[in-house]
Amino acid sequence: MLLGQVAGKVWATKKSPALTGQTFLTVEVGETTLVCADCVGAGEGERVLIATGGAARVAAGEHIPVDAAIVGIIDP
Amino acid sequence: MLLGQVAGKVWATKKSPALTGQTFLTVEVGETTLVCADCVGAGEGERVLIATGGAARVAAGEHIPVDAAIVGIIDP
Amino acid sequence: MLLGQVAGKVWATKKSPALTGQTFLTVEVGETTLVCADCVGAGEGERVLIATGGAARVAAGEHIPVDAAIVGIIDP
Amino acid sequence: MLLGQVAGKVWATKKSPALTGQTFLTVEVGETTLVCADCVGAGEGERVLIATGGAARVAAGEHIPVDAAIVGIIDP
Amino acid sequence: MLLGQVAGKVWATKKSPALTGQTFLTVEVGETTLVCADCVGAGEGERVLIATGGAARVAAGEHIPVDAAIVGIIDP
Repeated sequence: MLLGQVAGKVWATKKSPALTGQTFLTVEVGETTLVCADCVGAGEGERVLIATGGAARVAAGEHIPVDAAIVGIIDP
Repeated sequence: MLLGQVAGKVWATKKSPALTGQTFLTVEVGETTLVCADCVGAGEGERVLIATGGAARVAAGEHIPVDAAIVGIIDP
Repeated sequence: MLLGQVAGKVWATKKSPALTGQTFLTVEVGETTLVCADCVGAGEGERVLIATGGAARVAAGEHIPVDAAIVGIIDP
Repeated sequence: MLLGQVAGKVWATKKSPALTGQTFLTVEVGETTLVCADCVGAGEGERVLIATGGAARVAAGEHIPVDAAIVGIIDP
Repeated sequence: MLLGQVAGKVWATKKSPALTGQTFLTVEVGETTLVCADCVGAGEGERVLIATGGAARVAAGEHIPVDAAIVGIIDP
């Protein structure tokens, strides 16, 4: 998994129907920005644990077309 | 997921039969160009959300041999 | 998917039995060289569309141990 | 698989319920830091073998949302 | 798939039980070193074809937690 820091939110009104109801956060991972489905209620600035690939769908649901999900908030 | 900007279209007359009917867009993701199946009707210049790997097939269909799909258009 | 240009062929007499009968082409993708199973009859110098990961097996067959497959030839 | 060196531990009190009971270690892999589920009882400083993607869930359990797992300790 | 050159062997006495009996070789792929399960009996210095991700498990067995496998030896 990757460690990152939540930077903000992303809104996409027009999207795959299966994404309805998901919250998408931008997360800085080193030099890269990933958009992650939020499975734990993370907030801006928090350090988080990100599951990628199929692991994101184990967390978010197999029928949700996501490849990155926040699965933990690192204890401060 | 990745954030990118639609740059153009790709045409491949000769292709895997399972790709027939798909629209393929080139999307700039940082320094990289990805070819993505378009699941939401995105247009050139729009900022989009890209699902990669198996997530692309959750969006486009399990029997479509794609590894990247546009699954949302970022609100302007 | 990735865009690349076919550079040549690869021969491996000693290989996993499940790879028998596959044609393997080297494809330049930016600075990188990938070896791809050819699903469309691509030729040297042609620009091609490459499916990676599980998408390569959707195109080539689920029991073929490949992680990259040429799934289209870009119209000239 | 990747070779890495265990650097430390990660605690996340708030996490996906399916991650409960897993130990998460930070592992240096070249310039990168990965967070890995520990399947073998590795300790700080040990050189380890890391399985990524679906292979991590073959080791840790299919319903555990992890994409990296320590699956071996390199003999000293 | 990737092209690489076998550099050596890796021993891990303490490992996931499902890895028992596998031979692990280090393979140089450009600047990177991967540890690969050997499915074809490759030797040090040989140029090999590497299947990554799920393709490695198609070659090595679905219940073996590996993400990279040598699936061919390039003809000299």
